[in-house]
Amino acid sequence: MPMPPFQLALINPNTDESDTAEMAAAATAALGDGAEVVALTARRGVAGIETSAESVIAAAETLELVRDTPDADAYLIACFGDPGLDGVRELTNAPVVGIGEATYRAMTSVARRFAVITTLRRGIPELLDGLEHYGVAGRCVGVLASEITVEDLGGDSTDAIVAAGRRAVDELGAEALALACGGMTELETAVRERVGVPATNGVAFGALLAHALWRSGLRTSTVGSLALPPSMDPAALRRS
Amino acid sequence: MPMPPFQLALINPNTDESDTAEMAAAATAALGDGAEVVALTARRGVAGIETSAESVIAAAETLELVRDTPDADAYLIACFGDPGLDGVRELTNAPVVGIGEATYRAMTSVARRFAVITTLRRGIPELLDGLEHYGVAGRCVGVLASEITVEDLGGDSTDAIVAAGRRAVDELGAEALALACGGMTELETAVRERVGVPATNGVAFGALLAHALWRSGLRTSTVGSLALPPSMDPAALRRS
Amino acid sequence: MPMPPFQLALINPNTDESDTAEMAAAATAALGDGAEVVALTARRGVAGIETSAESVIAAAETLELVRDTPDADAYLIACFGDPGLDGVRELTNAPVVGIGEATYRAMTSVARRFAVITTLRRGIPELLDGLEHYGVAGRCVGVLASEITVEDLGGDSTDAIVAAGRRAVDELGAEALALACGGMTELETAVRERVGVPATNGVAFGALLAHALWRSGLRTSTVGSLALPPSMDPAALRRS
Amino acid sequence: MPMPPFQLALINPNTDESDTAEMAAAATAALGDGAEVVALTARRGVAGIETSAESVIAAAETLELVRDTPDADAYLIACFGDPGLDGVRELTNAPVVGIGEATYRAMTSVARRFAVITTLRRGIPELLDGLEHYGVAGRCVGVLASEITVEDLGGDSTDAIVAAGRRAVDELGAEALALACGGMTELETAVRERVGVPATNGVAFGALLAHALWRSGLRTSTVGSLALPPSMDPAALRRS
Amino acid sequence: MPMPPFQLALINPNTDESDTAEMAAAATAALGDGAEVVALTARRGVAGIETSAESVIAAAETLELVRDTPDADAYLIACFGDPGLDGVRELTNAPVVGIGEATYRAMTSVARRFAVITTLRRGIPELLDGLEHYGVAGRCVGVLASEITVEDLGGDSTDAIVAAGRRAVDELGAEALALACGGMTELETAVRERVGVPATNGVAFGALLAHALWRSGLRTSTVGSLALPPSMDPAALRRS
Amino acid sequence: MPMPPFQLALINPNTDESDTAEMAAAATAALGDGAEVVALTARRGVAGIETSAESVIAAAETLELVRDTPDADAYLIACFGDPGLDGVRELTNAPVVGIGEATYRAMTSVARRFAVITTLRRGIPELLDGLEHYGVAGRCVGVLASEITVEDLGGDSTDAIVAAGRRAVDELGAEALALACGGMTELETAVRERVGVPATNGVAFGALLAHALWRSGLRTSTVGSLALPPSMDPAALRRS
Repeated sequence: MPMPPFQLALINPNTDESDTAEMAAAATAALGDGAEVVALTARRGVAGIETSAESVIAAAETLELVRDTPDADAYLIACFGDPGLDGVRELTNAPVVGIGEATYRAMTSVARRFAVITTLRRGIPELLDGLEHYGVAGRCVGVLASEITVEDLGGDSTDAIVAAGRRAVDELGAEALALACGGMTELETAVRERVGVPATNGVAFGALLAHALWRSGLRTSTVGSLALPPSMDPAALRRS
Repeated sequence: MPMPPFQLALINPNTDESDTAEMAAAATAALGDGAEVVALTARRGVAGIETSAESVIAAAETLELVRDTPDADAYLIACFGDPGLDGVRELTNAPVVGIGEATYRAMTSVARRFAVITTLRRGIPELLDGLEHYGVAGRCVGVLASEITVEDLGGDSTDAIVAAGRRAVDELGAEALALACGGMTELETAVRERVGVPATNGVAFGALLAHALWRSGLRTSTVGSLALPPSMDPAALRRS
Repeated sequence: MPMPPFQLALINPNTDESDTAEMAAAATAALGDGAEVVALTARRGVAGIETSAESVIAAAETLELVRDTPDADAYLIACFGDPGLDGVRELTNAPVVGIGEATYRAMTSVARRFAVITTLRRGIPELLDGLEHYGVAGRCVGVLASEITVEDLGGDSTDAIVAAGRRAVDELGAEALALACGGMTELETAVRERVGVPATNGVAFGALLAHALWRSGLRTSTVGSLALPPSMDPAALRRS
Repeated sequence: MPMPPFQLALINPNTDESDTAEMAAAATAALGDGAEVVALTARRGVAGIETSAESVIAAAETLELVRDTPDADAYLIACFGDPGLDGVRELTNAPVVGIGEATYRAMTSVARRFAVITTLRRGIPELLDGLEHYGVAGRCVGVLASEITVEDLGGDSTDAIVAAGRRAVDELGAEALALACGGMTELETAVRERVGVPATNGVAFGALLAHALWRSGLRTSTVGSLALPPSMDPAALRRS
Repeated sequence: MPMPPFQLALINPNTDESDTAEMAAAATAALGDGAEVVALTARRGVAGIETSAESVIAAAETLELVRDTPDADAYLIACFGDPGLDGVRELTNAPVVGIGEATYRAMTSVARRFAVITTLRRGIPELLDGLEHYGVAGRCVGVLASEITVEDLGGDSTDAIVAAGRRAVDELGAEALALACGGMTELETAVRERVGVPATNGVAFGALLAHALWRSGLRTSTVGSLALPPSMDPAALRRS
Repeated sequence: MPMPPFQLALINPNTDESDTAEMAAAATAALGDGAEVVALTARRGVAGIETSAESVIAAAETLELVRDTPDADAYLIACFGDPGLDGVRELTNAPVVGIGEATYRAMTSVARRFAVITTLRRGIPELLDGLEHYGVAGRCVGVLASEITVEDLGGDSTDAIVAAGRRAVDELGAEALALACGGMTELETAVRERVGVPATNGVAFGALLAHALWRSGLRTSTVGSLALPPSMDPAALRRS
């Protein structure tokens, strides 16, 4: 039985198009043949989302991008803070996955305890709130900040991320690593190989998770809190 | 010792100017002499915020309004979902209070167990998440929806709110009532008198809470997660 | 790029071979071309696992079946109680998914609140413990028992399951339904269509989740609590 | 509109009258014109409450003092352990605030994460129980003991408190500081200035919080668990 | 090996000597030969403790009674609210058991889910706080109030308690019953026989638990938060 | 009144008969005259249970042993992980105690905060899950691993256990110590004396707790989740 065609809309809530390209490439490679990735970049906001205020703007922009792309089979919100995730789920009945949520689902599937490696220390409270929200706080042994900004990731910064990962494994008992930034896509392989534990930032896995939901016939609920808000035009948003 | 002048910026995250006026009047009456209330209305969004998607837009608009009003002594975000609250706290060192948060602080001060009376049933999951976030879920005996929209509040709808409140007290053991909507400002007195328990929607009390923080010298922290995001211009945002 | 071949070992911890066949068919259909499902049935135990004592026996049998099938690319434990899940994860570095865990991951991806529909009332405490363990208790609005045993599922019993599902949606605010039994595989479609919300028992979705983990290069951790127990022979258990 | 007169009864549950005077001065300064503070000192017990047994005695004494002062507009229990707080709320319908509870309300209003600075290490379990009770445990990054007793606070001890505060900010990520002792009233300003984050022990802010409740028409509930115990004489306790 | 003599001090925190006698008889019968029960009655307070204010007074009185009886091998605080329990543990290194705590330990030993049957509805918040404090909230399916006061227990009231117990088993899924009042001692047998599930109010079992701790050489810790408060005279309180 | 005879079945879920003998001796000494201990050793599995997979096998074996010994007055599962505990409770209405559960009940009776001393670091996640399950996670200040295997306990290893205990008291604020292994029975006295805090591994205390339940007439519930599974033969399992 041939796989039906599957179209994933990958939404990058920050404004950096090179991030978008890198994440789209990872999603495309993960999904393989018979899938198409439509990648969209925020038109307003910042190049690297590090704060709550920036995340608020990114969430509003994410909603706009989804409204402009109503026909995808599934959506991937490709920023670790999952900006606007619940709001997007009100706008469509296609599956919607956030890379933060996807990462935590992967973590608890491959390890009993994991650690989070992030960019700036100031983002730790937001991450801790997310761990609570997703019900995985009890499985997380710690959140370590590399003090490298989103925009400085790559190149030499890999060593710092790997070092933080090793510390998490050796000192905190982490058995897997959540890489808390869409910009860490290209670090996955290096961290896995050099630290020796499973690691992901949820872009490739999130694309596959969105596909798994869609392929098994699961759709975002359209009742209760996820019904389409009356203030939005339904005609343009739903597939027949 | 004369009270120093105190200027409160009341931000209405919805677009309904009559809501703004009603809430500003309540805040002004509560604060009394020696205080000034500057009331601002969202320029974009919906007249009654009932969903997560609408709340995302409201949060972005709230941030804009605060950036446009950098000199207030304190800010009151006058929508029960407290849209953008943590983001706003990054933008200013003045105290920032949300009416949802304020209401829950009042509830646990005057009762051991309380109930929440809201507008639409679809908003219950968002409210339950808020109860967890503010650490008061264990004190809440239930959330009751009247199925009256924000815009239909007032007039005959008072009876339905009072009836829900009585049910919460008689059947669920509520000892106080959180009125989960900025639009319920004028219902406070009716609910208190007819149900016989403390009740608030956090507008008047929130204005006083903001004043209490300010008057005791407390300011929003400027370190850690609440430091000003580098992507925002500090010069325009801080008072000397 | 052609999908690499993917072999899933589906372990049925109960002794009913018709259950195994039904679940294997669902997994095979979900995975599509380029995948192979090896289905294994417990040799000891009961035909329908309804109690903690029966689950203990099923867990031991599940471990045996995995030890006997060391070369799979991924494992799916196809009983909602996920018997022996953490133990199996010590024995292999291939991804291991339980259908209970998979179902809850699906629920929180497509809904803010869900309900669980189960067979016997006596199983409710075990399910509630599982909801806590997987960090989704706060998202679950209730567990409803149909009082139909695993072995009596199918045929007329569908109406009872559908009725329980409707009650969960209408009275409890469920937005999606977890069907808490491997034997409910063929009910998925009926429940989705007749209740109008997303529903799954995690067999088809779990097979796809296992594939998603494997395809994105994630493997079960081999450090910390998931290292191979020294008392077990490693040579026979790991793929090169 | 002139503020109505407001009378606050400040109850010091320890026996040290100089503590009472210091706290009353802070409350008076915070409330400003149009308010009167009646300060009462425990007649039995210890000069510095450091243990659970001492707190039990302080709670009973606090109840006595409130029963002897039935006509206040609001009550402030001025010991960080809030001894007898729920009991006092049964005796009066005036607002009742504890400085521990008030401090935690202030902390979560001005910071996402805070630390607690206390006197003796032995009090840490009691403080941790309080953090759970008030629903703020998830917002607290740590409790640090200075090993200075209540009675030795002041003078040289300020340096030790400031040093603990700095450690909390630099090493634990605290964004604000709870000063867990009524005797730390005069330390507030020094800690704020020298550590550079918001700090309070809840005396001045608690007085203002009590006023905010009262001024917005909120009264302690008189139904359910907070109804007047039949064993107490109602006539003497309630205002008309 | 003959049992060493064991002296239990049973503290009744209420003032009703017939309650004391009834509870002492149950403890004596449970402990059997080789044990002695010294029963003490509060000299101040109320005959039936139903509120937080009454519990505060009872706690202070309990401390007094323990200080007056320093030589017991173990202490049993025989009021379900365990008034003063942590305070008493600071005063002695003998084991100290509260009947509320003991009951919950029994419940989780003989059942996966239990219900609490109490006297007045107004006491429910206090009981729910206790369930949280003792870590058993997740095991409790509900708290049912009979609206019979402590003093009216016995005689005809047994039917009401039994009826509440049956409702808890049939409708809520309770597998055992906590009888939340020292005054329900003589109801244990009736409830067990007529409802058909394990039931206890912790008096007989608590006496045996205190003995079990003592007999296995366990003593109340004397370090950290349970060290003797310096304000109390150690000489009179400790056995050699 | 002479104590009725009491027969305790002590089940050692590992295969080491010297462990069984040591634990049986401790239980016999604790129970004293008028009690008989029947000690049973697992026939399959490992000599020291350190992993989840080993625990699964131990649980199945424990069930077998209990089914083979249906007439005991009470059962003690003498492995700290309490393998099969809920399953065993379905098979009998006699009281069933696990030494892990018993230890935690002792800890919270004699201390406000405790630490756990275990064998291998890899077992920490399993222990943390147990602390959550038993509702005592909030009372535990840390889990320390000695990196001594179960089989190497005794002799020189005592110093390492004592050192870990001292660290827990001095650095973490532990007030009592849980010794997380049935094989630590003979260490209890050394740890108590040399560290100076209460300590237990639950064998002696667990035997007494089982007796306390039995003696006070409490039996394992036979309704709800603990009813006898229909797949098991009731005739052989229950006493008349």
